Amino acid sequence: MTLPAHPRSQPEDFALLDAWWRAANYISAGQIYLTGNPLLSEPLSLAHIKPRLLGHWGTTPGLNFIYAHMNRAIKARDLDAIFIAGPGHGGPGVVANSWLEGTYSEVYPAIGRDAEGLRRLCTQFSFPGGISSHAGPETPGSIHEGGELGYSLLHAYGAVFDNPDLLACCVVGDGEAETGPLAASWHSNKFLNPASDGAVLPILHLNGYKIAGPTVLARIGDEELTLLLRGYGYEPRIVAGQEPELMHRLMAGALDASLDAIRAIQDEARCDGFGRRHRWPMIVLRSPKGWTGPREVDGVPVEGTQRAHQVPLSGFADHPARVGLLEDWLRSYRPEELFDADGRLLPEIADLAPVGPRRMSANPHANGGLLLKDLRMPDFRRYAVAVPAPGATTAEATRAAGAMLRDIVALNARDRNFRVMGPDETSSNRLDALFEVTGRTSTAEILPGDDHVSPDGRVMEVLSEHLCQGWLEGYLLSGRHGLFSCYEAFIHIVDSMFNQHAKWLKVSGQIPWRRPIASLNYLLTSHVWRQDHNGFSHQDPGFIDHVVNKKAGVVRVYLPPDANSLLSVLDHCLRSRHYVNVIVAGKQPQPQWLDMEAAVRHCSVGLGIWPWASNDQGVEPDVVMACAGDVPTLETLAAVDLLRRELPELKVRVVNVVDLMTLQSPSAHPHGLPDAAFDSIFTADKPVIFAFHGYPWLIHRLTYKRTNHGSFHVHGYQEEGTTTTPFDMTVLNRLDRFHLAADAIDRVARVRDRAGHLQQALRDRLQAHRAWITTHGEDMPEIRDWRWTS
Amino acid sequence: MTLPAHPRSQPEDFALLDAWWRAANYISAGQIYLTGNPLLSEPLSLAHIKPRLLGHWGTTPGLNFIYAHMNRAIKARDLDAIFIAGPGHGGPGVVANSWLEGTYSEVYPAIGRDAEGLRRLCTQFSFPGGISSHAGPETPGSIHEGGELGYSLLHAYGAVFDNPDLLACCVVGDGEAETGPLAASWHSNKFLNPASDGAVLPILHLNGYKIAGPTVLARIGDEELTLLLRGYGYEPRIVAGQEPELMHRLMAGALDASLDAIRAIQDEARCDGFGRRHRWPMIVLRSPKGWTGPREVDGVPVEGTQRAHQVPLSGFADHPARVGLLEDWLRSYRPEELFDADGRLLPEIADLAPVGPRRMSANPHANGGLLLKDLRMPDFRRYAVAVPAPGATTAEATRAAGAMLRDIVALNARDRNFRVMGPDETSSNRLDALFEVTGRTSTAEILPGDDHVSPDGRVMEVLSEHLCQGWLEGYLLSGRHGLFSCYEAFIHIVDSMFNQHAKWLKVSGQIPWRRPIASLNYLLTSHVWRQDHNGFSHQDPGFIDHVVNKKAGVVRVYLPPDANSLLSVLDHCLRSRHYVNVIVAGKQPQPQWLDMEAAVRHCSVGLGIWPWASNDQGVEPDVVMACAGDVPTLETLAAVDLLRRELPELKVRVVNVVDLMTLQSPSAHPHGLPDAAFDSIFTADKPVIFAFHGYPWLIHRLTYKRTNHGSFHVHGYQEEGTTTTPFDMTVLNRLDRFHLAADAIDRVARVRDRAGHLQQALRDRLQAHRAWITTHGEDMPEIRDWRWTS
Repeated sequence: MTLPAHPRSQPEDFALLDAWWRAANYISAGQIYLTGNPLLSEPLSLAHIKPRLLGHWGTTPGLNFIYAHMNRAIKARDLDAIFIAGPGHGGPGVVANSWLEGTYSEVYPAIGRDAEGLRRLCTQFSFPGGISSHAGPETPGSIHEGGELGYSLLHAYGAVFDNPDLLACCVVGDGEAETGPLAASWHSNKFLNPASDGAVLPILHLNGYKIAGPTVLARIGDEELTLLLRGYGYEPRIVAGQEPELMHRLMAGALDASLDAIRAIQDEARCDGFGRRHRWPMIVLRSPKGWTGPREVDGVPVEGTQRAHQVPLSGFADHPARVGLLEDWLRSYRPEELFDADGRLLPEIADLAPVGPRRMSANPHANGGLLLKDLRMPDFRRYAVAVPAPGATTAEATRAAGAMLRDIVALNARDRNFRVMGPDETSSNRLDALFEVTGRTSTAEILPGDDHVSPDGRVMEVLSEHLCQGWLEGYLLSGRHGLFSCYEAFIHIVDSMFNQHAKWLKVSGQIPWRRPIASLNYLLTSHVWRQDHNGFSHQDPGFIDHVVNKKAGVVRVYLPPDANSLLSVLDHCLRSRHYVNVIVAGKQPQPQWLDMEAAVRHCSVGLGIWPWASNDQGVEPDVVMACAGDVPTLETLAAVDLLRRELPELKVRVVNVVDLMTLQSPSAHPHGLPDAAFDSIFTADKPVIFAFHGYPWLIHRLTYKRTNHGSFHVHGYQEEGTTTTPFDMTVLNRLDRFHLAADAIDRVARVRDRAGHLQQALRDRLQAHRAWITTHGEDMPEIRDWRWTS
Repeated sequence: MTLPAHPRSQPEDFALLDAWWRAANYISAGQIYLTGNPLLSEPLSLAHIKPRLLGHWGTTPGLNFIYAHMNRAIKARDLDAIFIAGPGHGGPGVVANSWLEGTYSEVYPAIGRDAEGLRRLCTQFSFPGGISSHAGPETPGSIHEGGELGYSLLHAYGAVFDNPDLLACCVVGDGEAETGPLAASWHSNKFLNPASDGAVLPILHLNGYKIAGPTVLARIGDEELTLLLRGYGYEPRIVAGQEPELMHRLMAGALDASLDAIRAIQDEARCDGFGRRHRWPMIVLRSPKGWTGPREVDGVPVEGTQRAHQVPLSGFADHPARVGLLEDWLRSYRPEELFDADGRLLPEIADLAPVGPRRMSANPHANGGLLLKDLRMPDFRRYAVAVPAPGATTAEATRAAGAMLRDIVALNARDRNFRVMGPDETSSNRLDALFEVTGRTSTAEILPGDDHVSPDGRVMEVLSEHLCQGWLEGYLLSGRHGLFSCYEAFIHIVDSMFNQHAKWLKVSGQIPWRRPIASLNYLLTSHVWRQDHNGFSHQDPGFIDHVVNKKAGVVRVYLPPDANSLLSVLDHCLRSRHYVNVIVAGKQPQPQWLDMEAAVRHCSVGLGIWPWASNDQGVEPDVVMACAGDVPTLETLAAVDLLRRELPELKVRVVNVVDLMTLQSPSAHPHGLPDAAFDSIFTADKPVIFAFHGYPWLIHRLTYKRTNHGSFHVHGYQEEGTTTTPFDMTVLNRLDRFHLAADAIDRVARVRDRAGHLQQALRDRLQAHRAWITTHGEDMPEIRDWRWTS
């Protein structure tokens, strides 16, 4: 049963609150329309109206309504709250409120709290060089970009994890609510611990329409909607209507009741420890689209319809009479009762705003870099795999990383500022050392036989890459640290979320008042080359192609070849700021190449010649055998081992690349190796057989401007694979040792003509391999047991 | 209230059904373990067990249970049904049932219905060159790849749209149910019309665990789960337990009741017309993970725990005693009561299977190419925009396409085999002519003011790219046609779904019994260059980079420069088979270049010189100005117009590319232009200034092997943009006419030294542009009003 919203406050309370709401609505409409006369101190004319009308009115008055009521609650209860505007184009509203609160003028002094400031505020909106129509990094108080929809609740939950005193007021638009990520993210409450986490107050804002069509949740009726939201674990209070005075009373009552309920849940958990999951409160606000805007234009209804979505009135040049309609609309907010002649909000209205960091627009949790503390890091060398000689040891790289992550969790247990996310693959990905010190988070039912599941767990497993990514974004944006471990192929599920986060990083990095946040770290494992058992659908190394399309300043890609280099890279990434770091590393047992000191040296440069694997000492090599990625490194070394034994006169140089961005020119990426250094490693004209983890073209792209790029012959994933053996995966894509060796011979005229027998032997090995696996179902012993001997 | 499952059948009915289930479970376990002795006709030994144990047991017995009960219902009711196995790794079960039904041996004659066939069936599973552990294109009866999770319900709904007699039995795993797309896809019932569509029977299979952790929906209790599913618009019947006889009775009752309810809903709508949306039936099956498998191993519980997820028994070489445990387990299914000595299923059990195409493994809807009818296509020339001279007309390309799509809907109204999907942008994308003949689909509440919304609508708008994509995939895979229109930036949301579909196309194209299906056609509009008003978050042209990573045989990318070329391309794509076609075209008014006959000629080659725009007649050009995409074409022509006026001695050749794949070598893509033809167009050594719609690197990548590739200078999107003017978007990324002209001059030594004044003039224009937009908020008249004059 939905509890009735119970009004507590006196009716007179809402006159001032209504004034704030009108002020916010007035300034919101002003941003869409005005470039002059912001106080309507003279009759409105065409000259005051922007030539190009952009922006979205429809959702804005509802956002302003919620914001005003939240301020009332913050003041009454001294809440520490942030505001997340899910509706895509609610920018004018959030900006209006932050200007009314004074924050906007604090961070953008050119936009003062006066008439001229207001004029500039209005003009800049959706204007070249100005601000866009949705909340974003430029918006004070925002940790959420309103462009791509679906992630508001995830950002809200991410922000309140481990922030017990924080409340995230999260407005979910009914358009956004149709998206997959949003539909799943309601379940975040099964991962929220009221004892140690803050609270999210979701406000589902039903205004009925998307751009043109009706929304699903607005058209299923209150009864079915209530069932759905209860099924998601919430107790919805419905606030529906359009008459302002009544709506203020209903909303204040619903908000008070919701905040009381949150407090009761938290008090219980904090006094007695977490016992059981309660139904969390939420609000459904059903208000007209374009509320308080023009009722109709030219006899066609606008308020409450899809026609209020963007700009309800336009075409002023051709329809001069509409200027009067706009003026009537704007004056309906009675600006003369809101602002003094200088454009200052009247003091009794301004007093409604919370003070200092209690203002949602100035809450430091929404500028997480302000609160960011360095992680306490263990010495990563402690987890080193002993490598007495290259190839002498076998280890699982991610298992070493798991031990390090375990100790990071332990060292930062008191600060509670580090989490590991992943879709149920923490153990599968060999990171299970984490479970020595923490568990999988769950506040749903836990059964005795469950494997390390607890309401306090710091490992967040949910079979949704969207949820993992969204929670982590919210956690990082509010000033904490984390890691997302994922199957490589399925990280494409969050391609678009990565896009938005990378764009946020780029833009926020250019905003002086925004402080850098911790990097978003991906550990992609169970990668393409070891999806031999799962088959073709699990094979895709293309996320790194996607990543490098984003601005070089914010993206980094690492392909550590073994455990010690993974440890070094992981340490670096977890200390870094304001990047997206992609680390690709396998979880299977593999030969280890570098002892810890060698790994550190190698990773700090990012690429380098491996002299122990090369036989070109003192001479220019005939061929460079380059590799990036653990399996390509293995196959390259196996090829080199073979060549050095069978064709010792071929002078081979082995180069390994950990930091993919070193391949680019310094002008293209800050990690780019200078051309002279690059040429000295890759030579100016010798063939380079490059074994690459991903799609071959990425190497061509990155090395395009290098002297020797025409001699790069790249072997990589060619979209060939099936259910087969690990080694056969490389054979199908010609990345295996035999193809690599054959290619090397073929590129060096000096040996090519004399090595016919060796080429034949290589082809024979490939045939033997094919015959063997078809009979035995696993790789030949000579492959499985191969060890570096040269 | 959940209706009690009401048993109708006699207990004795289930003895045979149970035998089928045991047979399927036996063969499922056999696939995971056995490479010999498939009938246990001799004692099991290590030699009979696969050396490498792969596969997933956990979900399989539940799938087999459902499949057996579906067969009972199909026979009793003569249902036309398909089976969709959402749980990722249910492959052994689906394969086992299709072998028991005989379909497997019909499509793979080498795997007969006898002991040797059974041995081969078992051996091939998760074996090199064999089949993978999840259902996929190789699996008879499947339209669903069980690799990436989240899309089972979408495929099910897509298949039954416009298939009134079809029932899709869709098993949703509780792991998959955590994904965003699945969470949203329950709402598909608001888009299903019982009068003209078939029905989906969702079976939520709760076995409690993902790989290692518990699942959300298994841990919220029946009461909350029931609220949730009712809120989604379903009436769940819960079948819970593990004792087979009881479970058979419960399941049969729940299934009968569900099918009765479906029939009642359909009858009402088909007699009286669609009146109101009913709550659709569904089943929740709560059964132990690894049901009927080993209860425990070495004293640790397995059945009913996460340890049953993959291979419950392993390590036979080191633990020989386990061979006996495996044998006990396999013999618990009493194979001697199921198969004769030749390995044939006993006739009374085999008789349980439906006959011919009523077998779910042989249903033609699951091999949609069998049922595919060509679309009735209007003559696309009918929608031609009149272009008396290049640049003389202005038009919106997608508006012309909208008229053509309208007539395709109308022409195929009787066949009901064409739908248009999109996230609420049909009108915004100027395709609203569609609404002259159809509406937006909705069976939720419709209000009087709604704009073309109807239960019969053929335009499916939902603010979820996942739902659009998933429905369309299901619709295409079951033999129909469609188009997905989307904002370019946000199509990345379905990157991973595209991956899976492209992989399906590649693999199914190599399977003789699979018939080609209609292509998946994307119309990407509201593209990067016209997201000036929405800003940076809406700007991303990278989907085509993602697409070209997939196999050349299945992907096509088109960038028509104007309306007539869009019409020609669209006609081609809608007639094509078994591709993914990506069309990128703007919706804004733009100058038109080609009359219809010129457009057809141009598109049929895919790229070509535009002689009317070039001034190199009879001579080798100094520079080639190439372009791909509508905005790059506009800017290139504006640059050429300027150059021809200001620097007539510069001989310019204009090349336009519609079919991006022509740029690749013929060895890389079937559309690749032969090298000689390519060289004759792009020259062997002249500078090529290439204005490209997307990220510049894609052009370098595609032309990498061409003679002249070193002279390509590509201008494209460089991840620079904000809220600004349309032209400024090109300036920020140096794709504008002034930068292009300047680059052309700079690359031609013969004119470079004499054109300093022109270069200065170009810089002045850029400065004037910047000053103008900062003041006026829109582009300079000289830009907006520019027309081709040369």
